[in-house]
Amino acid sequence: MDGYLDRLITLALEEDLGAVGDITTDALVPAEATGSAELIAKEPLVLAGLEAFARVFQRVDPAIQVEFLARDGQALEPKAVVARVHGRMRALLTAERTALNIVQRTSGMATLAREAMAAVRGTRLKVLDTRKTSPGMRSLSKTAVRAGGASNHRFGLFDGVLIKDNHIAAVGGSVREALRRARANSPQLVKIEIEVTNLRQLAEALDEGADVVMLDNMDDEQIRQAVQLVGGRIPLEVSGGITLERLPRLARLGVDFVSMGALTHSARAMDLSLEIIPSRARRPARKTTSRARTKR
Amino acid sequence: MDGYLDRLITLALEEDLGAVGDITTDALVPAEATGSAELIAKEPLVLAGLEAFARVFQRVDPAIQVEFLARDGQALEPKAVVARVHGRMRALLTAERTALNIVQRTSGMATLAREAMAAVRGTRLKVLDTRKTSPGMRSLSKTAVRAGGASNHRFGLFDGVLIKDNHIAAVGGSVREALRRARANSPQLVKIEIEVTNLRQLAEALDEGADVVMLDNMDDEQIRQAVQLVGGRIPLEVSGGITLERLPRLARLGVDFVSMGALTHSARAMDLSLEIIPSRARRPARKTTSRARTKR
Amino acid sequence: MDGYLDRLITLALEEDLGAVGDITTDALVPAEATGSAELIAKEPLVLAGLEAFARVFQRVDPAIQVEFLARDGQALEPKAVVARVHGRMRALLTAERTALNIVQRTSGMATLAREAMAAVRGTRLKVLDTRKTSPGMRSLSKTAVRAGGASNHRFGLFDGVLIKDNHIAAVGGSVREALRRARANSPQLVKIEIEVTNLRQLAEALDEGADVVMLDNMDDEQIRQAVQLVGGRIPLEVSGGITLERLPRLARLGVDFVSMGALTHSARAMDLSLEIIPSRARRPARKTTSRARTKR
Amino acid sequence: MDGYLDRLITLALEEDLGAVGDITTDALVPAEATGSAELIAKEPLVLAGLEAFARVFQRVDPAIQVEFLARDGQALEPKAVVARVHGRMRALLTAERTALNIVQRTSGMATLAREAMAAVRGTRLKVLDTRKTSPGMRSLSKTAVRAGGASNHRFGLFDGVLIKDNHIAAVGGSVREALRRARANSPQLVKIEIEVTNLRQLAEALDEGADVVMLDNMDDEQIRQAVQLVGGRIPLEVSGGITLERLPRLARLGVDFVSMGALTHSARAMDLSLEIIPSRARRPARKTTSRARTKR
Amino acid sequence: MDGYLDRLITLALEEDLGAVGDITTDALVPAEATGSAELIAKEPLVLAGLEAFARVFQRVDPAIQVEFLARDGQALEPKAVVARVHGRMRALLTAERTALNIVQRTSGMATLAREAMAAVRGTRLKVLDTRKTSPGMRSLSKTAVRAGGASNHRFGLFDGVLIKDNHIAAVGGSVREALRRARANSPQLVKIEIEVTNLRQLAEALDEGADVVMLDNMDDEQIRQAVQLVGGRIPLEVSGGITLERLPRLARLGVDFVSMGALTHSARAMDLSLEIIPSRARRPARKTTSRARTKR
Amino acid sequence: MDGYLDRLITLALEEDLGAVGDITTDALVPAEATGSAELIAKEPLVLAGLEAFARVFQRVDPAIQVEFLARDGQALEPKAVVARVHGRMRALLTAERTALNIVQRTSGMATLAREAMAAVRGTRLKVLDTRKTSPGMRSLSKTAVRAGGASNHRFGLFDGVLIKDNHIAAVGGSVREALRRARANSPQLVKIEIEVTNLRQLAEALDEGADVVMLDNMDDEQIRQAVQLVGGRIPLEVSGGITLERLPRLARLGVDFVSMGALTHSARAMDLSLEIIPSRARRPARKTTSRARTKR
Repeated sequence: MDGYLDRLITLALEEDLGAVGDITTDALVPAEATGSAELIAKEPLVLAGLEAFARVFQRVDPAIQVEFLARDGQALEPKAVVARVHGRMRALLTAERTALNIVQRTSGMATLAREAMAAVRGTRLKVLDTRKTSPGMRSLSKTAVRAGGASNHRFGLFDGVLIKDNHIAAVGGSVREALRRARANSPQLVKIEIEVTNLRQLAEALDEGADVVMLDNMDDEQIRQAVQLVGGRIPLEVSGGITLERLPRLARLGVDFVSMGALTHSARAMDLSLEIIPSRARRPARKTTSRARTKR
Repeated sequence: MDGYLDRLITLALEEDLGAVGDITTDALVPAEATGSAELIAKEPLVLAGLEAFARVFQRVDPAIQVEFLARDGQALEPKAVVARVHGRMRALLTAERTALNIVQRTSGMATLAREAMAAVRGTRLKVLDTRKTSPGMRSLSKTAVRAGGASNHRFGLFDGVLIKDNHIAAVGGSVREALRRARANSPQLVKIEIEVTNLRQLAEALDEGADVVMLDNMDDEQIRQAVQLVGGRIPLEVSGGITLERLPRLARLGVDFVSMGALTHSARAMDLSLEIIPSRARRPARKTTSRARTKR
Repeated sequence: MDGYLDRLITLALEEDLGAVGDITTDALVPAEATGSAELIAKEPLVLAGLEAFARVFQRVDPAIQVEFLARDGQALEPKAVVARVHGRMRALLTAERTALNIVQRTSGMATLAREAMAAVRGTRLKVLDTRKTSPGMRSLSKTAVRAGGASNHRFGLFDGVLIKDNHIAAVGGSVREALRRARANSPQLVKIEIEVTNLRQLAEALDEGADVVMLDNMDDEQIRQAVQLVGGRIPLEVSGGITLERLPRLARLGVDFVSMGALTHSARAMDLSLEIIPSRARRPARKTTSRARTKR
Repeated sequence: MDGYLDRLITLALEEDLGAVGDITTDALVPAEATGSAELIAKEPLVLAGLEAFARVFQRVDPAIQVEFLARDGQALEPKAVVARVHGRMRALLTAERTALNIVQRTSGMATLAREAMAAVRGTRLKVLDTRKTSPGMRSLSKTAVRAGGASNHRFGLFDGVLIKDNHIAAVGGSVREALRRARANSPQLVKIEIEVTNLRQLAEALDEGADVVMLDNMDDEQIRQAVQLVGGRIPLEVSGGITLERLPRLARLGVDFVSMGALTHSARAMDLSLEIIPSRARRPARKTTSRARTKR
Repeated sequence: MDGYLDRLITLALEEDLGAVGDITTDALVPAEATGSAELIAKEPLVLAGLEAFARVFQRVDPAIQVEFLARDGQALEPKAVVARVHGRMRALLTAERTALNIVQRTSGMATLAREAMAAVRGTRLKVLDTRKTSPGMRSLSKTAVRAGGASNHRFGLFDGVLIKDNHIAAVGGSVREALRRARANSPQLVKIEIEVTNLRQLAEALDEGADVVMLDNMDDEQIRQAVQLVGGRIPLEVSGGITLERLPRLARLGVDFVSMGALTHSARAMDLSLEIIPSRARRPARKTTSRARTKR
Repeated sequence: MDGYLDRLITLALEEDLGAVGDITTDALVPAEATGSAELIAKEPLVLAGLEAFARVFQRVDPAIQVEFLARDGQALEPKAVVARVHGRMRALLTAERTALNIVQRTSGMATLAREAMAAVRGTRLKVLDTRKTSPGMRSLSKTAVRAGGASNHRFGLFDGVLIKDNHIAAVGGSVREALRRARANSPQLVKIEIEVTNLRQLAEALDEGADVVMLDNMDDEQIRQAVQLVGGRIPLEVSGGITLERLPRLARLGVDFVSMGALTHSARAMDLSLEIIPSRARRPARKTTSRARTKR
């Protein structure tokens, strides 16, 4: 059960179909016609969102069958066939755009995450995502980031305490006071992270027993001093306008985590297209190597 | 009433809050504390999505007041104050990320649309968007595109007949047959557009009475010949991997419309941030020039 | 709270507006324009559904004010002003059709119910409605029937036991067996009614202790005999293709209730229209006699 | 997927069942009993709404099977068996009324539409429906009208620009101004229709480039002059209190479209009934002629 | 169809899963692993809620199969196997707690109802439930009470008139006035019950034609006098802080009904647990006596 | 915003009202009548759920005003007035039962939690709740537990890793393997807790780096040995059939947490009642001590 994803897919289909439906397809294609289509990669990419892609079709018509020829997290070359979709032709055409709108974006995030991981390969730096996701796409985005090999920060506001600059401002500017309130009022089994912008705040956070500290918008020199100050007692996370270029340097500085908003808010949509296989020339099912095919 | 937007905002807040809520804010900030925050542009941008930004706060707490200091479609410089939000501090902090996730993306689209319009300034070429929008953000995206000065293509599958390559494949490959079926089965008052990939299909479309023709993935020379062939009898639209760089050339070729998927699927999120105004140092309401302030 | 009505109004507005909205009004009328409109009777009618009419406007824009100049159950002459609606012009125009679609139908039912009551005036025969209502309009229909002066049969399948021909068929054809099962398995405080088609079944129903009996599709002579057989021990209801013409005769036959499906499934929509009052010539609020005006 | 229809059916079932359910059926019929029922036409009619009829049963119990013995748009004689429903007896009885409430109304609309088409047979006049549909039944009504052979006007407020009297009033009374604003602010690929009440407005509309004009409440002589004035340059639609009797005359006047609100707001519910087939005397499946049977 | 139960189960699963899901199970158990689990009674109890228990699993994963080895209303000894659940291991673990939270509570109500019935065995006193149910669990609670052998009072506010002390206060304190209004304004086929606190009110209620009277918080002597006063003309119900201990005495006093809020608001949750059957040691399906096994 | 609570309240009101409404109140009380009522404690209790109590009334009628005379967590004596409710009399009567059904249960949980805290007073043992809550009442229950002074364990399956016996069985019985998988696949900032049933498993858990260990169903002697084995390195939680009587002993054994399912699944509903204040004798607003009155 994934009620949130179902709600997003329903919303996306309803904004596209209204109460009227797909007037082009309904005018052209007989209700009983069936057919097949292939999802094809048009550029090198790391795949993500395949389950959601399939679910869009099945929401339009539960009888549609989606056969997976690749899996989330897989790196694909141009022309790779990702999935085959079989069923009523009207449903194939009607669901196409909504399904593509998802898988193109999630694959974009996975591809960017993979590039980030490549930039820190061989180091112990973990690349994390943020909550900067498109509305309704939180879970799809978090899953795509993992498909690309990066790791998830907290999911939402409910599963981790992260004290940010605005929180500190709201309690009058004191790191110490913020941490005290957090400790007094949080669930027993939750770690407490706090964002600091200078070494004085960092020292205060250490002193007050923060479990993790986020260094916000610090330059390399400040980060170096922070790592030295902490001396491995707690994990350190770096955040704020992080680019792929800066990752290797951050890895060498010895921080534990780096969080990149860009993974989910600036990933380019990958080029994947759905192509109807004309029924006269239906190709025989290619017996592709060793990949398991999941009939759904 | 905008039920779709309300559903998207509800979904976005629920995926962020779950049934638990914002455990950081609830631990730090007393329920009765009130305060103010400012939405601030951190880079040059064209604003869009301000209504939705405000609605997120009001969904979290109907008593919150949002004061607009700019309006959708306005070009802003860094440090410009876009809006002020007043009310319960907890609600300000809890709604912040979800509200930013929207306005940063919609402003990104508006900014890109404005750049596209700049590239065709002085010509009669109209830049259109597509249905390549993030799931649930169709309406927000269409509005953002207009805020940037570009125009909307159809909204969804229900308000325009657009026969694409997959439709033609589904009817056996014939442009003529596709147009005949469209004419026979469409609502009386709807225009019919068809996508063609070569001049032979274009001639067939003209012959069969298409109202608009979309030239898909043609190079400049093919487009030139198409324009000549049509001779102004019907509008022509160019589509397929359009970049800002190519726009001026397309304008000179004499087509009527160009549709750019990038407007909604590849716009970068703009940098806007929400900053709590510490209550001790609440600045006096700046009397900004002549802008009307809408108290909502 | 009336969740069902809210869901119906939301559904009706969404099927009319989609995710796009009212493109005519949005193109013509500035967002900030305000105005007034009057709901006017265009033929003699009994009013019903005024609350729902108002709620449609308020669902589109909570700030709209609806002033009632008549009340449900009131008989109106042509040109009577039923209500005034004030607020944003766009909302007035956008909600108009959906609001009219309801009040025209509910007034049709009330008007027909009033005619039925006129046909039995001076007798003790009670005219009842049925469950033959338009999907989603059960409550609106029941209320309209009462506004016309007739009475409600059960609301749905949950608030009364009514054993019909198909139920008797489903238990093997025995009135006696049907009543035994009903008595054994029903809530303690519910009356049991059974539909019979002949006097033998009626005798069986009486013998088995039915609380009410419905005579289905009987002619006058059969009804006369049924009334004689029962001798006032329990109430009798007549049902099946009842017309206004037949009502006076049924009243004389001495039955207690007559149920008319036509009240809710065949009532003609009444002619009511909404007319924008041009703002230049806004008429002064007519001080109409003694009617209370409810500002909502 | 038809989320709107599903919502309407859910609403209709919930208003009939509440949280309690069908207390009569539950008291009489064992949970495990199965059976069959037939949907039978009781008067001459044109069928519409069969899919929705089936969907009601399947919403109550997904295991129910509905066998179609007729199809939407087919003219039926009394006693014709329209469909057979097989499955749990409780579900058959519980869904009966809600399913009938739909199919009786949609068949009423199709039957009236067929009568309208008969009145214009042999002419090129197209009969259109309007947005005067029962709340929640927009799509069912539009489909029923097509089943009867008439055509659909726009579906809702979102898929066509239709400037009506109240819109003209709202912009200060000027047809010219209304058309200018419509052209400036409408989607690129949409036709613009305007309602006029006299020849002066018609001339203005022609001059300003309306795509279609609706002649509202004009008598035959006015219509004749309008047709002459337009001279075939654009299509003309006639509207306002149109009756079946007037249709042949309108056809001779040379207008292109006539829209009839009565098709959806004044159609009488057709008499169709559901009859349980007693299991002892289950008739052998009649091999009816050549009709395809769709097992759903 | 039981939309209310579906909504409750969805709500319960969503509050437990959020948009994130079961992070423990997802981290430990591979997506493709399957397995079985048994629902086992850990103390003597009367079973209720088995359908809802199964539905929770099927809501999480429609492919899960639930095999019933007992039925609602059955008295079980410790270690009795109530049901077997087969399917994806992740779904078994994820649904476990929500399914148990229901069946433990409903079995608690059934067990208490059975004890109440034991206390009145051999008498004609009927034990009724009330509307004092956990929010969202009305139908589950009413069904559980019947499984225990007790009877249902009205389901909600819509299916019976019950005039309570606050209603009498709201009409100015007069039993007579309350009954008059109820009779004048209620549906034709509904019984009217009124709550009285003394014999004077009881006499008034009898005089005004109440169908049933509820004696609220009376001691045995008052009840004795009330029974004498009524003399069997109408049924009497006793209510207010009723305990199991008092039931036999009430039965001897000759009242007809006793309603116990405790049945649904104070029943202790029964101890039932779900135990994963390790796949290596899957026990052979025990052939338990004569019970039918329902594969769902 | 608390969408979950709103959904629960809506569900509870709809199951009580159906589409019909409160037929008793509607028959007796005029629509325009207004009045007041008081929520009164009828036994000693710790209050919880006051916000939800108020929200039920406001869901029925947004115009109702609820004045709080006590606050969540406050210990009340019999006859204490907890709140006053003012507004339309119909709404007061219609919402009464649903509002009481909530506040009686949540106050029951708070009262039991307070008793548990009393049993461990002066020790450092923290009493935690579990996920054994009534479906839909997770958040209400967690809040009530805090109002009583006890603490919350995780909220749901999404905000903490807790490996239970069934998880260990599902991975083949190995504590070590379970912890390894949890560590490899969990979010970076989450603590991992595991349930063990003997000292061997405890040693394995310690060795594998569990953050917290839950001792399930151990007797005092086993717990003593476990505490000794752990030596304060990580926190220990005791769980399984915990009673109030056992708490002091557990505190002396030196464990850190004890979780009690009974707090939310076995708390008795507290006796609180709503009493209409007859309008003739409306008492003057009592000036109760120093409590702030929150007008909502």
